[in-house]
Amino acid sequence: MQIEGRNSILEALYVKKKIDVIYIQQGLNLSDIETLAKKQGVKVVTLPKNEIQKMSKTPKPQGVIAQMQDYVYCNIDDMLKDDGLIVLLDSIEDPHNLGSIIRTCECAGVDGVIIPKHRSASINETVVKTSAGAVNHIKIARVGSINDAIDYLKNNGYFVFATAMDGELINQTNMKGKIGLVIGNEGSGVHKLTKQKCDGVVRIEMYGNLNSLNASVACGIVLWQVLEQRKP
Amino acid sequence: MQIEGRNSILEALYVKKKIDVIYIQQGLNLSDIETLAKKQGVKVVTLPKNEIQKMSKTPKPQGVIAQMQDYVYCNIDDMLKDDGLIVLLDSIEDPHNLGSIIRTCECAGVDGVIIPKHRSASINETVVKTSAGAVNHIKIARVGSINDAIDYLKNNGYFVFATAMDGELINQTNMKGKIGLVIGNEGSGVHKLTKQKCDGVVRIEMYGNLNSLNASVACGIVLWQVLEQRKP
Repeated sequence: MQIEGRNSILEALYVKKKIDVIYIQQGLNLSDIETLAKKQGVKVVTLPKNEIQKMSKTPKPQGVIAQMQDYVYCNIDDMLKDDGLIVLLDSIEDPHNLGSIIRTCECAGVDGVIIPKHRSASINETVVKTSAGAVNHIKIARVGSINDAIDYLKNNGYFVFATAMDGELINQTNMKGKIGLVIGNEGSGVHKLTKQKCDGVVRIEMYGNLNSLNASVACGIVLWQVLEQRKP
Repeated sequence: MQIEGRNSILEALYVKKKIDVIYIQQGLNLSDIETLAKKQGVKVVTLPKNEIQKMSKTPKPQGVIAQMQDYVYCNIDDMLKDDGLIVLLDSIEDPHNLGSIIRTCECAGVDGVIIPKHRSASINETVVKTSAGAVNHIKIARVGSINDAIDYLKNNGYFVFATAMDGELINQTNMKGKIGLVIGNEGSGVHKLTKQKCDGVVRIEMYGNLNSLNASVACGIVLWQVLEQRKP
């Protein structure tokens, strides 16, 4: 996998991901990255601007590209916890949304994010960059079926809630204990069968004319409302 | 101004924006748009796919483009209100972020959004599309100086808060009454002088390793925490 951008690469160095090589644009002063790379024995190569641009897979590599091993997913078992909080993403297709949601989940301190193998963005360069490196700090599992993952969580004592416009207000619902939260696809929301599998459906109160928020914004509001309730 | 995408154009029709012409891709069934356009006497022209693509200024026009008059900004005076809530954006540069923040503000029912003329995205095609048409439902003012706008709000009885990592926890701060909220630039946050002009600085509680959220996600969490407090 190739990752791009200063923050993403700094984050990867901080958490000591296995980086094969870092390419830095000639003339740029990225001493923080270079110092850390040297300390960890990571090879740094300086290249002219046009070479960096040719190699880049995102619109703004910010003059620095790293090549590293592919993202290693973990198992659901690794994220199970007493009073745990897990987010399940039901087919988020846009890698920018996926990255932003993972970043939001990390800042919320959730124990893990579960994504499906099919009809979903996976952890690629764009996701790593949009997540601002959050992928390195949070557990992510990739499963064949979100519905099976919900069953697995329920069998492990979790209450799983779908988020949808026709749900109960989240701040009037008990969100303490072991909780799973399903965030739906950008356009079509949580699939009908998936919703039926859940123990409940919750929603955010809306105050305007439009009835839908961007998926990552909605995820942020939901999570902080849940966290507010779970404070000791 | 040219707007693109089904939702954006439907929204513009619903709120009866002055549209000069709508171009629809040959073979597409967009009867909801066509019916509304006909009812309002808006000209509809069918064009081959490649013509639509040539005309498009966004990556996914979804087969429909409308040409309309430029966005009309309003004055700060139009958004002043008893117990009002106004969001000020201190140099949001990315039009996707601006659109998403405006969408979030509309869903939160804020009375208006104030953006600066310089060093900020303005209301263009991308913003209209990312906002999912929210620009048509919310008052937006464009000012020469955010600092002057803060003074103006303060003179009109508003308490203005900057959002920044070194602030007080927002849910431990009184956010009732006339409130202005300043959201900072994606990278550098709220400018130092702007922060000093504010009556206070507030922040969201963070629970992970990263210390910053995407600007529109942060805006959503802040707004819903404010709204929670302001409930009757």
